Amino acid sequence: MIGNFETHINAKLSFLKNSKLLLAISGGIDSVVLTYLCYKLGFNIALAHCNFNLRGKESDADEDFVLQLAEDLDLEVFVESFDTTTFAQDSKLSIQMAARILRYDWFETLAKQLKYDYILTAHHADDNLETFLINFTRGTGLDGLTGIPEINGKLVRPLLPFSREFIEFYAKENHLKWRDDSSNASTKYMRNKLRHDVIPVLKEINPSLLQSFQTTLNNLQGSCDIIDDRIEALFKEGIIKLTPTGFKLSIFEIKKFHNIKAYLYRFLNAYGFTEWDDVTNLLNAQPGKQVFSKHWRLVKDRDYLLLSELVDDERSIITISETDKQVETPLGILFFDEADAILETSKTIVYVDKTTLNFPLTLRTWEEGDVFFPLGMDGKKKKVSKYLKDEKQSLLEKEQTWVLCSGKAIIWIVGMRADNRFKVSENTKHILRIELK
Amino acid sequence: MIGNFETHINAKLSFLKNSKLLLAISGGIDSVVLTYLCYKLGFNIALAHCNFNLRGKESDADEDFVLQLAEDLDLEVFVESFDTTTFAQDSKLSIQMAARILRYDWFETLAKQLKYDYILTAHHADDNLETFLINFTRGTGLDGLTGIPEINGKLVRPLLPFSREFIEFYAKENHLKWRDDSSNASTKYMRNKLRHDVIPVLKEINPSLLQSFQTTLNNLQGSCDIIDDRIEALFKEGIIKLTPTGFKLSIFEIKKFHNIKAYLYRFLNAYGFTEWDDVTNLLNAQPGKQVFSKHWRLVKDRDYLLLSELVDDERSIITISETDKQVETPLGILFFDEADAILETSKTIVYVDKTTLNFPLTLRTWEEGDVFFPLGMDGKKKKVSKYLKDEKQSLLEKEQTWVLCSGKAIIWIVGMRADNRFKVSENTKHILRIELK
Repeated sequence: MIGNFETHINAKLSFLKNSKLLLAISGGIDSVVLTYLCYKLGFNIALAHCNFNLRGKESDADEDFVLQLAEDLDLEVFVESFDTTTFAQDSKLSIQMAARILRYDWFETLAKQLKYDYILTAHHADDNLETFLINFTRGTGLDGLTGIPEINGKLVRPLLPFSREFIEFYAKENHLKWRDDSSNASTKYMRNKLRHDVIPVLKEINPSLLQSFQTTLNNLQGSCDIIDDRIEALFKEGIIKLTPTGFKLSIFEIKKFHNIKAYLYRFLNAYGFTEWDDVTNLLNAQPGKQVFSKHWRLVKDRDYLLLSELVDDERSIITISETDKQVETPLGILFFDEADAILETSKTIVYVDKTTLNFPLTLRTWEEGDVFFPLGMDGKKKKVSKYLKDEKQSLLEKEQTWVLCSGKAIIWIVGMRADNRFKVSENTKHILRIELK
Repeated sequence: MIGNFETHINAKLSFLKNSKLLLAISGGIDSVVLTYLCYKLGFNIALAHCNFNLRGKESDADEDFVLQLAEDLDLEVFVESFDTTTFAQDSKLSIQMAARILRYDWFETLAKQLKYDYILTAHHADDNLETFLINFTRGTGLDGLTGIPEINGKLVRPLLPFSREFIEFYAKENHLKWRDDSSNASTKYMRNKLRHDVIPVLKEINPSLLQSFQTTLNNLQGSCDIIDDRIEALFKEGIIKLTPTGFKLSIFEIKKFHNIKAYLYRFLNAYGFTEWDDVTNLLNAQPGKQVFSKHWRLVKDRDYLLLSELVDDERSIITISETDKQVETPLGILFFDEADAILETSKTIVYVDKTTLNFPLTLRTWEEGDVFFPLGMDGKKKKVSKYLKDEKQSLLEKEQTWVLCSGKAIIWIVGMRADNRFKVSENTKHILRIELK
C-alpha cells in the first residue's frame, strides 16, 4: 500500500522531476507527509511557510516546527509573517479569504522571483469531498461541484487522489511528526461537522465513497468541458463578444435559447451577479437600464447586454512610467520599443514617436472638454465628445472610453483613434508601439 | 403559512383545473396531504393505489385505509394488487425497481384508458434532497444530481417545493390521518440514515438548506440545458446521426474534442455502458471491434462508432396482422390504408398493392439465402447479400437489416428497397402505405 503510494506520486510527479518545486507547508500532517515524500523521492523542493499570526504562540510554534523540519531534512525554507487580521479588516474580507489571498499571493511572488516552476500543496481527497459538501450545503452550481483540480497552472496537488485515512496511515508507518493543522475557526467548525458527523454516515452507505466521488467529479468535469465547448461556439458565432472592459451579449440571439437564465448564469455568475430575475428582465428593458453586482455592471444597450467593470475613483488615473511594458487595470495595454519597421496602425495598435512624449504618461477615462487632433484629419482639432458621438458610441461605451495622455495632450483614444501630434514621421528615431491586449 | 401553501398549490395547478387528475396514493402522509389538498381545492381527482403485497397484512390495511378515505371524501378510487416479488424475480430486478415499473405502468395504462390528463404524485423537497444524496453517495454524473422535475409529461408533483416538516405541520393542523409509508427496506435504510443522521447536520450548517438546494438544482438543470443545446448542435452538424436502431458517431469529428470521454459518457451512459476506457479505445481500434453493455452494442466501423440494440432471439421474427397499424420493436413501422394518390416511393416510405399480400406479414432480420426482386430492375432476381454488398453496407448495418415478408416473399428490405412483385399497378384497388418511423 505504502509502496503503491510512493509509486503513484513518483509517476504523477515525473513531469516535475527536473523542476524547482516550492512546497507549501503549514506543519500539519498533510503537508508534512508531502514534504517527506518529495524528500524521499529526491525531488528538488524548498519549503514555504506562512505565519498568519492568528493563534499567538501556537502560530510561532508551527513556524519553529517547520524551520526545524527544514533543518533536519536539509531543505531550503522560506517563512513569511502576515498581519492577517489587519489585512482582513482593511480589505473587508473574512479571515479565511484574507489568509487565502495572502498565502497564494506570496507563493506566486516567491515562485516568480526565485524561478520555482511549480507550487505544491497537500490537499487530499477528503478536503475535496468536504469542499463539495460545503458548497452543496450553501447552494451552488456545477462549478462549485467539480472539486479542486490536481494540476492548475503552476499549482500541483499530488495527494488529491488519497484519503485522509491513508495519509494518517502513511505518517504513522513512517513515524512522522506533525502539528495540528491551523485553519480558520468557522470553516473548521463546518469541516469538522462534515468530517465527523456526515462523511462517516455516507461511507457507511457506500464504503468506497471516495472512489465514487472521484468518478462523480470526473463526470461533472466532463459536463463542464462540454459546456465550455458550447460557450466557445457562441464566441465563434459572435453571440458573445469580448470588449475592452468585459463582454457583450447579443440580445436577439440570447432570446432564442430555451433556457435563457442558464446562459446568463453561466456568463455572469463569476462576476458576482445574484439577482437572476433582474438580469433576465434586462433583455426586455428600456435601453440604459442597468443591474449591478459588487464590482460589475450590466447595461441594456440597444442590441446588446454590455458587461463592464465598475471603476473605482482611486484607479481612474493610472500613471505609466517609461520602463512600464504593460498596464493591466482596467485595460491591458502593452508598450514595445520598436526599432525598425512599423506595421499599419489599427484600432488596437498605434505607433508613436517616443521622443515627443513626456513620461510618465497617464491613462484615464475621457472627460467633458477633452479635445484631440485625430490622426489623418490634417491637424484639425476635435472635441472627444463630438468624436464619440460621430462614432455612434452607446452611453456605456462612452463612459468606458479611455484616453492615453502625455501631459494634458491626448496620445490615443484607446482602441479607437490616435492623435496627429505624436505620429511617426520621417525624422522619428525611436518608435514606440502601443497595443491594446 | 397554511394559506400560502394552498395558494401556491392552487396557482401551480391552475393549468390542471379543468383536467381529469389521477392521484397516486400510498396512504402515507405525503399522498394523504396531497389528496386532501386537491379535494379541498375542488380539483377533479380520482385515487389510484397499488397494493404491492410486500408486507402481508400491513399492505392490506393500507389498501383498506385508502378505500375508506375515498369513501369519506366521495372520490373514485382504483386499487390494483401486484405480485411484486414474482415479477422482480422473473425480470431480474430489485424489489424497489420492480415496484416502480409496476406502479408507473399501471398509472399510465389507467390514465390512458380512462382518459386522465395528468398523474399526480406526492414527492416533496426532502425526497428530492435524499435522492440527490443517494445518487451522490453512490457516484453519479450531472443527470443524477438534477433532481426530480415538478412537471414531466403527464406526471405532476405539486408538493416538490415543500419540505417534509411543512407537510407534517399541515397534516397535523388539519387533523389528517395517514398510514406509515410503505417503501422498500434497502432504500428505507439509506433514506433513514440520510434523513436522521446527515440532513440535520447539513441543516445545522445552513438552516435554509432546502432553499439553497432548490437553487442548486435550478443551476444544475441549467447546465444540463446548455449541454443539450450543444448536443443538438452536434446533431445539426451531423457529428451524431440517428440510425434505425440507435445512432452513429463520426470518429473523425469526435476525435477533435478536448474531452472525448465526456462526450462518449454523455452519449452512451444512458445505454448502460460503464467501461469508458474500452469505449474510448474503440476510436482507434480495428474496424469490427465491439464493446457491449447489457442491451446495447457499440461497434467500430470505418468512419463511425455505431450503437445498436442487442436483439433477443425471441423477438427476431415479428408477426403483423392486417389490423396492425404500427410495429414498434425494434423498428418503428407504420401501416396506412391509403385510398387514393400515392407519393413517390422513398427509402423510408413504400406503397404496395394490399391485395397481393398474405397476412399476417412477418418482419425479421435477413438471412443468407434470401432473394428478392428489386423494384425498378425489370423483375430481375437478386440475392439480398449481393444487394447489401453493392450498397456498401458495413458489417453491423448488414446485421441490422430487416426484411418485411409476405409468406416467404420479401416485400421490402426495410429502409432500403421495395420488391417488384408487390408494387402498385394501374389495377391496384387498395394501396397500403408502409413507412419507417
